[in-house]
Amino acid sequence: MTYCVAIKLDAGLVLMSDTRTNAGVDNISRFRKMYTWEIPGQRAIATMSSGNLSITQGVINRLSAAIKRAEAGEEIETILNAPTMFRIAQIVGETMVAMQERHRSTLIEQGAGADALILVAGQLSTGDHRAFMVYSAGNFIEATEDTPFLQIGEHKYGKPILDRVITPQTPVNVALQALFLSMDSTIRSNLSVGMPCDLAVIPTGACRFSTLRRINPEDEDWQALSNTWADAIRGAFEKLPEVRLE
Amino acid sequence: MTYCVAIKLDAGLVLMSDTRTNAGVDNISRFRKMYTWEIPGQRAIATMSSGNLSITQGVINRLSAAIKRAEAGEEIETILNAPTMFRIAQIVGETMVAMQERHRSTLIEQGAGADALILVAGQLSTGDHRAFMVYSAGNFIEATEDTPFLQIGEHKYGKPILDRVITPQTPVNVALQALFLSMDSTIRSNLSVGMPCDLAVIPTGACRFSTLRRINPEDEDWQALSNTWADAIRGAFEKLPEVRLE
Repeated sequence: MTYCVAIKLDAGLVLMSDTRTNAGVDNISRFRKMYTWEIPGQRAIATMSSGNLSITQGVINRLSAAIKRAEAGEEIETILNAPTMFRIAQIVGETMVAMQERHRSTLIEQGAGADALILVAGQLSTGDHRAFMVYSAGNFIEATEDTPFLQIGEHKYGKPILDRVITPQTPVNVALQALFLSMDSTIRSNLSVGMPCDLAVIPTGACRFSTLRRINPEDEDWQALSNTWADAIRGAFEKLPEVRLE
Repeated sequence: MTYCVAIKLDAGLVLMSDTRTNAGVDNISRFRKMYTWEIPGQRAIATMSSGNLSITQGVINRLSAAIKRAEAGEEIETILNAPTMFRIAQIVGETMVAMQERHRSTLIEQGAGADALILVAGQLSTGDHRAFMVYSAGNFIEATEDTPFLQIGEHKYGKPILDRVITPQTPVNVALQALFLSMDSTIRSNLSVGMPCDLAVIPTGACRFSTLRRINPEDEDWQALSNTWADAIRGAFEKLPEVRLE
């Protein structure tokens, strides 16, 4: 499985993904789920993916190949020249549909799943910062004021802490803390989600990544947060009112 | 959906279930998931169920009907005269298989699911307190020293807090607090799990229920714990170390 979150704050986009994939429990590998593209000051875009890895890697490969062809002079639309974040989400959706058309029927014939989800988040200097969730069918939804975060993969373990903390007005540093704890809880409770993690921050209006970090298990911030939280949970527990037994 | 937990502590069994069922999101009802049987000082048994409600209600009806027939003088084995908790789990499993044989093929023919899970927990004066999870196929697993709690239904949201707190040595009052918070987190994050909840405690060796409580949303303990925890989470958050943005 996988766990990836895109949070859309008034202050910017905060993104985190794990790196574990598994085909069964005895075939566990490490693959980057987060890919980023940047023309500093003009556009910063990130994708994170879950589901069938051959499908999502295929989508990323096609997006990258298109960028190379455009750089070589070919006149094609890519996520680096598309005019809006909405159009970029459409391009990812169209590429998803192409991959599904190529592989879905044979995958299902052989008893495998072809489903995949891709989070697309970013900002162009010509528009607002936005975050989308692209489905296998190429359609997508967008994070809004009411639902400022999108999760894919093993999303349930880490949802309560995000539900409690995240609003559009949450500052980036607080969202980061909530995101670390959301990932920490998921990794503690589910073997199919694992370190290291990738973290990205795109501050509103900057159109560049202010943070692009690989978080390893020995990362000092990770350990400090994980340990402080574990202590705080224990401390909070000790102060809880008793439940009457009668 | 549903959320039910059975915790097996050295000090006793602590059980909690919600009461929400849904067939789609527009057909939500309230059904008790927890059933209890008690011969004080001799045996205390509880079941909690998830999955197809017609199947699990059918199992409970058959278990209860057998008890009535035995009380009327018929010589049949029931969960109130079975010699061990293990045999009681087998009886629940056999009853599950009978219900599956009766309805599964027609249910599946019509596109519905027949899967169901039943937690069976209790103690007989002749043996140890035990907790089992009975599957649709009638087979079952048991809570052990390594895994002292069993969850059915929407188990992921509320697992992290149990993972952090519950060991066999956890006292009953602390386990109760963790269980309330586990249920609280699940209800906050998933519409298909809802109040009121049912709570039962069987202290080790007592062979009776020391606690049998229906917890309503306005329950004072529930509100105090839920609010104190929400405040503590916010307080703990404020004391978290910062994540470096570079």
